[in-house]
Amino acid sequence: MKSGLSFLIAARKCEIDELDQLARTSDLVGLIARLVHALQRERGMSNVFLASRGVRFAEQRDPQIAECLALEQEVRAGFDQLETEAHPGATAGNSARLFSRIAWVLPGLDGLPALRRRIGALELTPAQATAAFAKLVAGLLAVVFEAADGATDPEISRLLVAMFNFMQGKEFAGQERAFGAASLALGRSDEAQRQQWLHLIELQERCFQVFTDFSSSGVLALWHQSQSDPVMAEIERQRRMSVSPAQAASACVPDARLSQAWFDWCTRRIDAMKTVEHRLAADLRELCARKTAQARGELQKYQEVLGNLAPQPEGAVFFDDADTRATEPAQYGRHLERSVLDMVQEQSRRLQAMSDELETVRASLNERKLVERAKGLLMAHRRMSENEAHKMLLQTAMNQKRRLVDVAESMLAMADYLPLDAAPRR
Amino acid sequence: MKSGLSFLIAARKCEIDELDQLARTSDLVGLIARLVHALQRERGMSNVFLASRGVRFAEQRDPQIAECLALEQEVRAGFDQLETEAHPGATAGNSARLFSRIAWVLPGLDGLPALRRRIGALELTPAQATAAFAKLVAGLLAVVFEAADGATDPEISRLLVAMFNFMQGKEFAGQERAFGAASLALGRSDEAQRQQWLHLIELQERCFQVFTDFSSSGVLALWHQSQSDPVMAEIERQRRMSVSPAQAASACVPDARLSQAWFDWCTRRIDAMKTVEHRLAADLRELCARKTAQARGELQKYQEVLGNLAPQPEGAVFFDDADTRATEPAQYGRHLERSVLDMVQEQSRRLQAMSDELETVRASLNERKLVERAKGLLMAHRRMSENEAHKMLLQTAMNQKRRLVDVAESMLAMADYLPLDAAPRR
Repeated sequence: MKSGLSFLIAARKCEIDELDQLARTSDLVGLIARLVHALQRERGMSNVFLASRGVRFAEQRDPQIAECLALEQEVRAGFDQLETEAHPGATAGNSARLFSRIAWVLPGLDGLPALRRRIGALELTPAQATAAFAKLVAGLLAVVFEAADGATDPEISRLLVAMFNFMQGKEFAGQERAFGAASLALGRSDEAQRQQWLHLIELQERCFQVFTDFSSSGVLALWHQSQSDPVMAEIERQRRMSVSPAQAASACVPDARLSQAWFDWCTRRIDAMKTVEHRLAADLRELCARKTAQARGELQKYQEVLGNLAPQPEGAVFFDDADTRATEPAQYGRHLERSVLDMVQEQSRRLQAMSDELETVRASLNERKLVERAKGLLMAHRRMSENEAHKMLLQTAMNQKRRLVDVAESMLAMADYLPLDAAPRR
Repeated sequence: MKSGLSFLIAARKCEIDELDQLARTSDLVGLIARLVHALQRERGMSNVFLASRGVRFAEQRDPQIAECLALEQEVRAGFDQLETEAHPGATAGNSARLFSRIAWVLPGLDGLPALRRRIGALELTPAQATAAFAKLVAGLLAVVFEAADGATDPEISRLLVAMFNFMQGKEFAGQERAFGAASLALGRSDEAQRQQWLHLIELQERCFQVFTDFSSSGVLALWHQSQSDPVMAEIERQRRMSVSPAQAASACVPDARLSQAWFDWCTRRIDAMKTVEHRLAADLRELCARKTAQARGELQKYQEVLGNLAPQPEGAVFFDDADTRATEPAQYGRHLERSVLDMVQEQSRRLQAMSDELETVRASLNERKLVERAKGLLMAHRRMSENEAHKMLLQTAMNQKRRLVDVAESMLAMADYLPLDAAPRR
């Protein structure tokens, strides 16, 4: 029969396993960040390429695609490794959800060659190409989201939440780059377009707010440095010209030079963001390594105490504060037993505190979950595709000038009143 | 490189692993329920034995102790099995917390022989013996609580929550049996005693309320049947006599016959409760088996689809609703790909729904967590032992005639105003 101390050790080993798993997931998140960055560049180039009917970025596309392919191989290898090492039996809390997200995004990666052929043959509009890349990036971000949501250590979870929000904010910035470049190249401007541009700015800002809330001062310094004044000034100027109705009307002619300039300024901004992502990924690696080393050190301490214990501890100190032993003198064996009980209590309190803190960190992910849930509701009740559901929520938010999450919340609150649409979806 | 479908399968395998782990934990919970029942009987006997200065229950104690020992061996074997099978690597979400609870309770089991010797030698008061057994049972219940809190399947979690609350309610009923038997045997009655008796009744009722909220109609029928009218009428009569100030004063003489009668009626009630516990444990086993079989069936279905898939799926259907393929005709391969994507989406939605439902079920465990957190706060700020912290919360609740959880919540809300006591604890 095993002693209490063996279970104290078993608990520590579980924590170490979880930390090891988190370290692998964190590495994967770093890789995904690099792939997403490359795909964002490819999306931007593809848009300008399509909008200019194959004139601009024709040469730069190929090396960009090659870079994407190389990173894609690394990410796929990371997925495979996660799956191999996870089986049989080594499952952390949310592995099923994480794998389900990976299962969702892989067909998207499989579909990239066909997508690229069609872009090369100018068979798609810029909007179609943007939508396709955005869907793929959203799938990759969902993997990062699940990694953040499933982390069992609050400090690591904080960093993953910061990382996810930074990546998501950067993705909105990337969407804005592509959207703006295509708009300026086509010289089209209407109210819907202005609204969507504004919406992309707002979404970015919310993400970067969560990111700053969860980041260290070192990361924040890098972030402020990356958003340098001259670049941001140019971007803000173009934003103002494009989203204010009066000015937009006057600028409503196709302007390849303007489109290129916008694209370049945004690229400078987004490339600078990459340094923050690198730093976050490095911090994540360092934190995982430090936490694991610390847990292994504690484990060793426990094992030393176990070595010093008498083979058959009496365990009677357990009942000390039930007042049954108040009169007995202290002995060496009892002292050791007491120190084991103290270690157990300390561990128990630490695990409880971790679990409380984890709950607080995860609460920041709830907004996205609410939106996902509202989408699921629409998909079930109105037989919509995910894309349609998202558009409907977005349109409602823009019409009512409310935040997406508030619309989602109202919708969920009214769930019981929604009729179940019996019409088949396809 | 693995396909999306392999990860769909990996996600299912993770779920199956978790279900297998839950089945083992559920078996353990059933064993713990039987051990707790036996310890509760031993506590009751020990109390009457001590209160009667070794006259009553002298003969029945030994066979009861033997039964406890046999069950203790089974529970210890269950703990050991959990630890062996959990390592290396096979860690479910809360294994660390579960093991930490086991580490806490094992020294209590180790201390039982010494406790029994001291009871046999009449070295303890009934109150001391009750406190010691209650602490041990609380430790065992904490293991069950952690099992309920860590379950990853909402249906199983519901049953575990029902089981935990039933066991906890039954424990309060057991404490009431011991408390009442000792009070009546000693013939002592004062306001504090009446308050504690009332408190034990209230705590029971809250637990049984949660249990009924989370139970099937079959279990509820058994529960109502177990609380038969004649037994409950006798118990309620004695409660009324003991907790109403006027009547209690007149009954304030040692009465061995009354103590024995109370003990016997309560025993009939608690023994009848055992059938509910058995039923819950059986339901839990059956549910785990059914869920596992169902998940294995789904897994097989996926594997068959995987066998039918072309070796190099093109994956282009992923971008269908990004409007890039609207004009292409459907083909067999695309049809199959679409069905895989549908399976992924269905799985993803199911996992999300499970996670939402799980959150709802777990919310019912929050009250206990709040109380634990408030205790932790008191222990840290006032340098109290856990026992002292619990008594202080309880006393405040009784003085202010508020629920324990409300006192805990107020205390946590004021956490920032609590001074940190610098005096050493020991």
